[in-house]
Amino acid sequence: MNDKLDVLFHPKSVALVGASNTFSKWGFIIPACILSGGYQDKLYPVNPKEDTILGRKVYPQVSAIPDEVDLAIIVTPAPQVPAVIEDCGRKGVKSLVVITSDFSETGEEGAKAEEEIVALARKYDMPMVGPNSMGIVSTSPSLYAMMAPFTPQAGPISMASQSGNVGTKMMIDSSNQGVGVNKFASSGNEGDITICDYLEYFGQDPETKIIALYIEGIDDGQRFIELAKNITPKKPIIVLKGGRTRAGGKAAASHTGALAGSTAVYESMFRQCGIIQAYTTQEVVDFAYGFAACPLPPGRRVAILTRGGGWGVLSADFCEDMGLEVSPLPQPVVEHLDKVLPPYWSRGNPVDMVATLNLTDFGDALKLLLENSTYDSVIGLGISVKPVSPDLFSSTIPNSIDMEQMQAMQKFVSDAGESQVREIMTAMKQHQKPVILVGTPAELEPMENGTPINIFPDPERAVHILSAMVRYAEYRRSLEAQ
Amino acid sequence: MNDKLDVLFHPKSVALVGASNTFSKWGFIIPACILSGGYQDKLYPVNPKEDTILGRKVYPQVSAIPDEVDLAIIVTPAPQVPAVIEDCGRKGVKSLVVITSDFSETGEEGAKAEEEIVALARKYDMPMVGPNSMGIVSTSPSLYAMMAPFTPQAGPISMASQSGNVGTKMMIDSSNQGVGVNKFASSGNEGDITICDYLEYFGQDPETKIIALYIEGIDDGQRFIELAKNITPKKPIIVLKGGRTRAGGKAAASHTGALAGSTAVYESMFRQCGIIQAYTTQEVVDFAYGFAACPLPPGRRVAILTRGGGWGVLSADFCEDMGLEVSPLPQPVVEHLDKVLPPYWSRGNPVDMVATLNLTDFGDALKLLLENSTYDSVIGLGISVKPVSPDLFSSTIPNSIDMEQMQAMQKFVSDAGESQVREIMTAMKQHQKPVILVGTPAELEPMENGTPINIFPDPERAVHILSAMVRYAEYRRSLEAQ
Repeated sequence: MNDKLDVLFHPKSVALVGASNTFSKWGFIIPACILSGGYQDKLYPVNPKEDTILGRKVYPQVSAIPDEVDLAIIVTPAPQVPAVIEDCGRKGVKSLVVITSDFSETGEEGAKAEEEIVALARKYDMPMVGPNSMGIVSTSPSLYAMMAPFTPQAGPISMASQSGNVGTKMMIDSSNQGVGVNKFASSGNEGDITICDYLEYFGQDPETKIIALYIEGIDDGQRFIELAKNITPKKPIIVLKGGRTRAGGKAAASHTGALAGSTAVYESMFRQCGIIQAYTTQEVVDFAYGFAACPLPPGRRVAILTRGGGWGVLSADFCEDMGLEVSPLPQPVVEHLDKVLPPYWSRGNPVDMVATLNLTDFGDALKLLLENSTYDSVIGLGISVKPVSPDLFSSTIPNSIDMEQMQAMQKFVSDAGESQVREIMTAMKQHQKPVILVGTPAELEPMENGTPINIFPDPERAVHILSAMVRYAEYRRSLEAQ
Repeated sequence: MNDKLDVLFHPKSVALVGASNTFSKWGFIIPACILSGGYQDKLYPVNPKEDTILGRKVYPQVSAIPDEVDLAIIVTPAPQVPAVIEDCGRKGVKSLVVITSDFSETGEEGAKAEEEIVALARKYDMPMVGPNSMGIVSTSPSLYAMMAPFTPQAGPISMASQSGNVGTKMMIDSSNQGVGVNKFASSGNEGDITICDYLEYFGQDPETKIIALYIEGIDDGQRFIELAKNITPKKPIIVLKGGRTRAGGKAAASHTGALAGSTAVYESMFRQCGIIQAYTTQEVVDFAYGFAACPLPPGRRVAILTRGGGWGVLSADFCEDMGLEVSPLPQPVVEHLDKVLPPYWSRGNPVDMVATLNLTDFGDALKLLLENSTYDSVIGLGISVKPVSPDLFSSTIPNSIDMEQMQAMQKFVSDAGESQVREIMTAMKQHQKPVILVGTPAELEPMENGTPINIFPDPERAVHILSAMVRYAEYRRSLEAQ
C-alpha cells in the first residue's frame, strides 16, 4: 500500500473527471485550485459535454486521454462513479480520489454502492481516497486538489482527517501559523484507504516530519497501536479525537458511523503509544509549531521571563495547571541579573523585567536563563517586534513633531526587535531547549534553515505547547531507558 | 468616593505633569495618545524646562495653569512626585493618576514614599489612581490616557486591572472583538483607590453594562463580596484571577504583594457572588461578547447546526465537557427539516446540513431551532460571509474565465452571507435566546442598535461563552426564586 500511496501523492498527470465551467461547482473549483496551487504537471479535464475548461482541452472520458494518468479525481454524480472507475481501471489509471458523496454516509443503499466502487477500484489495483472526500494535498509536486480555495505553504507536517472541514481548518491554520504542509488527505468514508493506511505511509515517508490526525473512529485498533508505537520513537503524532463524550460520540456515529469507544480507553491507548492528544484544532496547530520550531525539552523545569508582572503570574498558574515546574532562580543567575536590572527586581522565577524598555537586556536575560542547567525551557513574555506605529500619531499631532525622525526611531526599534527574536531562536538551537515567545503577534519570515518563528498572543498557548513537548520527550526518554 | 471617581473619569481639563518632547518617554507617549484619542477638552502639558510640547503651551507647574484642573496625570520621577502632588493640592486639582513607579513595589523605602504621597493626596481630598499605574481610559469624554498607543472603540464594558499589561491586552482585544470599552483603570499599587472602589463605582455607573476585573489579591474580601452581591443581579462581573496556583501565587506576591488566598476559597467566593470566573484574557473578552451581544439563555439545552459533520462532533464534545445539554431534536423539527435537507440528513442534534451550499436554508434551519421551545441557545457552525476571493484564481487562470462575472457572483454570495447573519442576530433578539456563530472570522459592522456581531474561529470558544452565560443566568434565576 505504501508504494501505491506514493503514486497517489506524487502524480505526474491528473485527470479531473466531472470538470465544469460553472464557477459554483466542485468540477470548476477543484481544478481551479490545482492550477492556482501551481501544479506543473499535466492536468486533463474530463467531461463529455465540454470542449475547453480553464483554457485546457477537455476529454470525453478518461480512456480518451492520450497519455498515462497517475491520478483520477472524480466529482461526477454518484450513479456515474462506477462507470468512471471501470473506465479508469481499463485505462490503467494508478490511483483515485473520489470527492463524490451519496455513498455509505447516506444509508444502506449508499453502502452497497460504495462496496461496488471499492470492489472495482481493488479489481484494478487502484488505491482510492474517499468517497465523500474533500480532496488531497501534496506540496512537493505542488498538488493542491481541494474544495477550499487556499494554497498552503510547503513544510514538515502531514495530516489525515476523518472530517474534511476540520482537516481543512487544521491545514490552513497550520500553514498560516508558519508550519507548512507536506501531505494532506480528507479520508472521507474510507471505503478503501483508511486512517491506519495514511498513518503507516506518513510514518515511513521521509518528507513527513510531524503527523496530525483527526479521528472519530478506528476500525482496527490493534493495527493503529502497533503503527503508532513504531512511529512515535521517530516522529511525533498529534491526534484530535472527535466523539470523546456521550453527546460527541452520538454525533460521530451519525457523521462517520464511528463506534463510540470509551474515552478512557482511547486516552490510555494514545498515552501508551506516545501519541500527543490535542483537544482543539488550535492545539493541533500549536503543538505542530512546537515540534517544528523547537528542540525537545530535556525536562519539565520552565523559566519565565516577562516584561509585565501580570503575564508572569498567569504563566506560572498555567505551568502549574499543566504539571510544569516553575523552578527557583539559581544564585549565579540572580547575581548576574542584579547587574542588569533595577535594584528592586523580583529575584525569582518568573523574572520580571519591570517595564524595562531595553530589548537587548531582555534578549540577554533570556539567553542567560537558556544557558543555565536549572531550566529545560524558557517562556519569553512581552515580545513586540513592531511597536507603536507613528501613523497613529500623525493625524492628530501638530507639525512640531519631526515625523521623519520618529519613523527612523521606530524602524530602529522594530529592527532591533526582530533581530533579537532571531538571536533568541539561534540560541535556542545552540542550547537544544525550547523557547516559546508570547507578545504581539507578527508575521516573521522563517529562519534561514526554514524553522518557523511564531509569537503567540497568549501565555496559556505557550504553556500548552511546552506541556505537549514535555509529554512527548518523556515518552521518548522512557523508551530509551528500557 | 463614587462622586470623586466620576470627576476622575469625566475631567473637563487635564494637566500632564512631566510632559516631554522626547518620543521614547511616557511624558510624550501619554499626551500623544490623549490627543490621538480625540480628547476635546483642555490638555495642559507641565514641564519647567520646555516652552511647547505637541504644539501646546507648556506650564512650569500645575499651579501656573490659568484654569481649573480636574485631573493631573503625573509621570515625573518618583522623588519629585510629593512636591507635584502638594502643588496640585494647593491648586485645587480634583483627581490624580500617578504613572510614576518606584514606590511600594520596590520595597520598604518605596512603601514609605507611597504612604507619603497617599497622605498628601488624601489631605487635599484628591482620589489617586496608582502609583505605578499604566493609566486610565474613559470613552465618553474620549479620554485615552494610557501607555499603549491604541484608541479603543466606545462600548459597554468597564475594566479595572491589577496588572497594566494584562489589562491593556483585555481592553485592546475586547475593542478589536467588537465590545467597546466604557472605562478602564490600571490600578497600579492601589495606594489610594482600590479594586473594590472601582468595582463599586462601575456597579452604580449607568454607562457601564458589563464589568471585567483582573485581580491578584483583594485586601477587603468582605467588602468585595458585598459589592459583588449587590451588582451581579444587575450586571455581569467577569473576573480573571491571577495567582490561582502555588507557583502563580508566589509570582503574584512578588508582583503586587498579593497574599496567596486558597484557590478553592476564591473560586467558591466568586460562585457565591454570581461572578463569572475566566481563566485567560481571551475568555474575559469572549464572555464579554456573549453578555454584550446576546440575551441570557433560559436554560442549558443547546441546538447545534453545522455545515460540517466534524465540527458538530467536536462541539457536542465541548458542550458535554461544560455541562451543557445537546438535547434530541423534536419530531416537528425533524419533519420540517425533512422538507429542506437531503433524505440522508442526520435527523439528530447536531443538525448536519451535509455540505449544503445554500445559505438561505442554513439561516432558515437556524431560525427553526431558535423558535423551538426545546432549545435555550443555538450554535451555528460554518459561517463564511466572505467566501472565495476570485483574486486567488485570477493570477493562474486563463482569460477564458469571465472574471467580472465571477466577481459579481462572489459579491452576491458574500452579501447574502452577511444579510443572513444579520437576520439571525435579529431573530436571536426576537426569541430572546443566544446564538453564537462559528466560522471564518470577518469584521462586521455592529447591528443598528450597536449590538456587536462576531464569528468565532473555534467551536470551543462558542461553547465556553454559552457556558459562562448559562452559569450567570442560573445565578440570576436562583435569586429570583428566593
